[in-house]
Amino acid sequence: MILNKIREMMKEQNINAYIIPTLDPHGSEYLPEHFKERKFVTGFSGSQGTALITEEAALLWTDGRYFIQAEKEIKDTGFSLMKMGIEGYPTLNEWLQENLAPNSTVGLNAKYYLQSNYEELEKLLSDKKIKIVDSDLISDLWTDRPALSNSEVFLHDIKYTGLSSEEKIEQVREELSKVKADLTILNGLDDIAWIFNIRANDIKNTPVVISYAVIEQEQAYLFIDSAKLKESVKKELEKFCAIKSYDEIFDHVANYTDKTIYINVNRINRKLYSEIGPSNRIVRGKDISSKLKSIKNKVELENQKNAYIKDGVALAKFTYWIKTQEDISKYNEYEVSEKLLEFRKMQEGFIEPSFDTIAAYGPNAAMMHYTATEKENAQLQSRGFLLVDSGGQYIDGTTDITRTIVLGELTEEEKIDFTYVLKSHLALMGIVFLKGTDDRQLDAITRAPIWKYRYDYKSGTGHGVGYLLGVHETPPTVSMKSAGNEVKVGMIFSNEPGIYKEGKHGIRTENIVEVIEDVKNESGTFLKLNTISYAPIDLEAIDVNYLDEDEIALLNEYHAKVYDKLSPYLSEDEREWLKTNIRKITR
Amino acid sequence: MILNKIREMMKEQNINAYIIPTLDPHGSEYLPEHFKERKFVTGFSGSQGTALITEEAALLWTDGRYFIQAEKEIKDTGFSLMKMGIEGYPTLNEWLQENLAPNSTVGLNAKYYLQSNYEELEKLLSDKKIKIVDSDLISDLWTDRPALSNSEVFLHDIKYTGLSSEEKIEQVREELSKVKADLTILNGLDDIAWIFNIRANDIKNTPVVISYAVIEQEQAYLFIDSAKLKESVKKELEKFCAIKSYDEIFDHVANYTDKTIYINVNRINRKLYSEIGPSNRIVRGKDISSKLKSIKNKVELENQKNAYIKDGVALAKFTYWIKTQEDISKYNEYEVSEKLLEFRKMQEGFIEPSFDTIAAYGPNAAMMHYTATEKENAQLQSRGFLLVDSGGQYIDGTTDITRTIVLGELTEEEKIDFTYVLKSHLALMGIVFLKGTDDRQLDAITRAPIWKYRYDYKSGTGHGVGYLLGVHETPPTVSMKSAGNEVKVGMIFSNEPGIYKEGKHGIRTENIVEVIEDVKNESGTFLKLNTISYAPIDLEAIDVNYLDEDEIALLNEYHAKVYDKLSPYLSEDEREWLKTNIRKITR
Repeated sequence: MILNKIREMMKEQNINAYIIPTLDPHGSEYLPEHFKERKFVTGFSGSQGTALITEEAALLWTDGRYFIQAEKEIKDTGFSLMKMGIEGYPTLNEWLQENLAPNSTVGLNAKYYLQSNYEELEKLLSDKKIKIVDSDLISDLWTDRPALSNSEVFLHDIKYTGLSSEEKIEQVREELSKVKADLTILNGLDDIAWIFNIRANDIKNTPVVISYAVIEQEQAYLFIDSAKLKESVKKELEKFCAIKSYDEIFDHVANYTDKTIYINVNRINRKLYSEIGPSNRIVRGKDISSKLKSIKNKVELENQKNAYIKDGVALAKFTYWIKTQEDISKYNEYEVSEKLLEFRKMQEGFIEPSFDTIAAYGPNAAMMHYTATEKENAQLQSRGFLLVDSGGQYIDGTTDITRTIVLGELTEEEKIDFTYVLKSHLALMGIVFLKGTDDRQLDAITRAPIWKYRYDYKSGTGHGVGYLLGVHETPPTVSMKSAGNEVKVGMIFSNEPGIYKEGKHGIRTENIVEVIEDVKNESGTFLKLNTISYAPIDLEAIDVNYLDEDEIALLNEYHAKVYDKLSPYLSEDEREWLKTNIRKITR
Repeated sequence: MILNKIREMMKEQNINAYIIPTLDPHGSEYLPEHFKERKFVTGFSGSQGTALITEEAALLWTDGRYFIQAEKEIKDTGFSLMKMGIEGYPTLNEWLQENLAPNSTVGLNAKYYLQSNYEELEKLLSDKKIKIVDSDLISDLWTDRPALSNSEVFLHDIKYTGLSSEEKIEQVREELSKVKADLTILNGLDDIAWIFNIRANDIKNTPVVISYAVIEQEQAYLFIDSAKLKESVKKELEKFCAIKSYDEIFDHVANYTDKTIYINVNRINRKLYSEIGPSNRIVRGKDISSKLKSIKNKVELENQKNAYIKDGVALAKFTYWIKTQEDISKYNEYEVSEKLLEFRKMQEGFIEPSFDTIAAYGPNAAMMHYTATEKENAQLQSRGFLLVDSGGQYIDGTTDITRTIVLGELTEEEKIDFTYVLKSHLALMGIVFLKGTDDRQLDAITRAPIWKYRYDYKSGTGHGVGYLLGVHETPPTVSMKSAGNEVKVGMIFSNEPGIYKEGKHGIRTENIVEVIEDVKNESGTFLKLNTISYAPIDLEAIDVNYLDEDEIALLNEYHAKVYDKLSPYLSEDEREWLKTNIRKITR
């Protein structure tokens, strides 16, 4: 039993409690298999959770999405489930505070711990003078550990990126100068991919490369397994940076003395941070490149828009296919998601899905993170809603779009709910706002119509979208949880309000918008949003009595654009179908 | 010349630069005459400005509202005007950084400097090792200085306050316990008045008492000129606090050792702060009582609502008077504001205006802080708008309300502007929002309609309102400038969007709202706003084509309430007039 072996090692190393979080050294949203230590130890395969082992206890914390799955998967491993957010279950921190003896020792692998979380833990344990030690107890035990992916790196051509890597590095250096820093250490994979214009296939759905980087005022370094670099790529990169091996980063950082180093402690792992010598001065902030890449340049925007047209064509063809099936109940959720993938694969430059497609029928759509699999899925029926949330990685952009498709008869409640989701969606689509407005404010303006219906969706209204990178990016974070990021021209983000009713249905209408300038006048500069994703919004689900004239006009205007953008790429049958299904509506 | 005398003293005391801000020791919004040192020195009587004197320079910084007035008033005093916000004029801080020599000395009266501003200044000057000294150069020169007001203190009866002072002190102590503090030092006059349930007439428009207070876990102290306390009041206060003389606060604070002291550094003056000995630990935060008093209790709300009905009656009578004048051009702005005061004085429990009435005709209303005086004012005309922003201090509450009244013919632009202001006003009036929403978000939701019109008003949407205290209170601050205060049940604040067009007109429609609970359901707790101020919104100025059905319904509903609340207190003529002028409108 793995648990016993870990406990033996803990005893040898005088560790009283060992923490195994869910993280890679780069703070990635999706983990490569190689880094899934918590899954190896506990058996639990969900995307979120933390394990804790002491002499007596073996506990796994995870959230409500995963209670049933986790109970099943941790059976026979010796672990007990700690239900996050449920009364009677202490949090991990509360548990540590209550149960650890003074002067005891907590172990963890500092490579899988963010510096900011580490500082919190340190503070928490300092009252009892509890020590934290960096210890890897898993590597020796995990004999069949999957290798780190070694997919081949390709250069993202300047015709897609608009800026060369040299130019991006120069931008980073300018920002470093402003805060009087000598260098910055990067370990966010999307940031590194964006700066160096490199992509690969190291993580499913996100075409990044496992690597570290350092940018000094005069020199840039990329820390990467050189086996991933074919000669031509290596040559190109060496024009503007020094290439070192992946693990060399630790020694490299340890060698700095008397430098001012800019770091995002919410992104850097504790081990790397701890290598920084005490003679250096640290400036904390968000990743410079995260801010830079949140403002898409003209070439990026042009390409991204093109990708959204291709993606819209796939979605329109898919919707036509669904709507024209004689008997949709022949198919299950998984099968239709595979069908959608077929349509995406027909599009030029498609690489892979940008996340696991959510194709959720009926009540399943009320579970916000539901994913059907080949083994577990529901059969469709010719009534109610099918929610399809999907996206693609294309060579010229990353897409994300959700439509809730009518499969047959609807209840009055389903129609009203759909219409209120649409009202909130249109509130954001048609917004005009003063420069300086933040994402938290846009979130509230979007929610206002659905709040009048006395409903609140427990997710953000939207998230930034990467460019052949992660489908979730920040800034912006259009959410009640945002501390407030200014919404700037060139940002793109999702507009995805929804209504989720357990046991009944789930409805979400998601488009992607770009922030553009509206007018400048004596009041200042006004901005607005241009929706760049195109697919029909199902008219069969709208109760027009709940829409006002401005909302109807906005919907009709959007649908006219959908037809213009997509019809050239559709068959005649599809085009005719589309024409009917995006027809102008009136009250 | 005062300036030369100050320079002589500066020389004697080796002071290279002397700063004279606009502040009293309590951070009050309106200053008692006794504290207007900047006015005494520079001649400039505006409400905002900072003077700086060096051997060569004598400068006065103030903002755009006051450029013309200040130029006039400082003529012949030796001061030059520094126009804040205008290119080419350095800020005070920039000026100091550029012009002061290393190791020089800056003087200021630390009683008139907030600790937070002092810390900023200290930081700014530390690079050049410039010293700051506490020095009062004005008192000896100002021979005819007005005495500190010694108005008589009265107890605000529990039938108005709902809570005894003992209970309020207990609430403060509970909050102190939560942050493990032994005591808090208070120098905000509204906070002290609220906690001790005392009021007086030390400051125009705001019935507070010049005083300091300290609340320890076992004892409370009030520092006040005892001449202000008649025997019965003193006896009542001594039941729960020790009374000391006003100036004793400094020695009292200096005597604390090894204590944990809770302080708002944005409110305490530098001199008082500097008395705190180094053995004490300081916990910084907003005034505990500011948070407590922002949530009005049931008795306060009931009284406050009653005050708003009386205030509405005065406003309705006034509007009737205006509207039924045969020739309104007989009157000027000042005369109508005096007329309004007459109507307020007829109301039971009226004490004084809560601020200087803004009665602004035509283009004058575009100046947001315009006040007509007996000497300087404009004559009304029988066309366009008269904006009247006014309020009262009543024994049972503080009021604030604005109406823009039609005096005759309007342009199409005036009507559309009025209607857009109304749209934004109604957006906030009818809002439903989830618990947890903040004031900055409400501000954006209110602005959304007026932003669509490509206009932005350069003021907040609203401010908290005191209870027989300052007409401006925070929290909440419904503004783009707010960092975000949660909007809570029991708060009351103003809803006052506007449109201001230089040389043309100014329009503002202001009501006061209370935050109340709406429904609790699976989504959480929803809150909404109940408008508690009542006066007709001028139907003659509305272009109904710009309103949607929900907006019209909301306006009609509000007007029906206006009639219900006010009509019992009006004459028959007034009642008939009101009925016609709040009639239901339709498209």
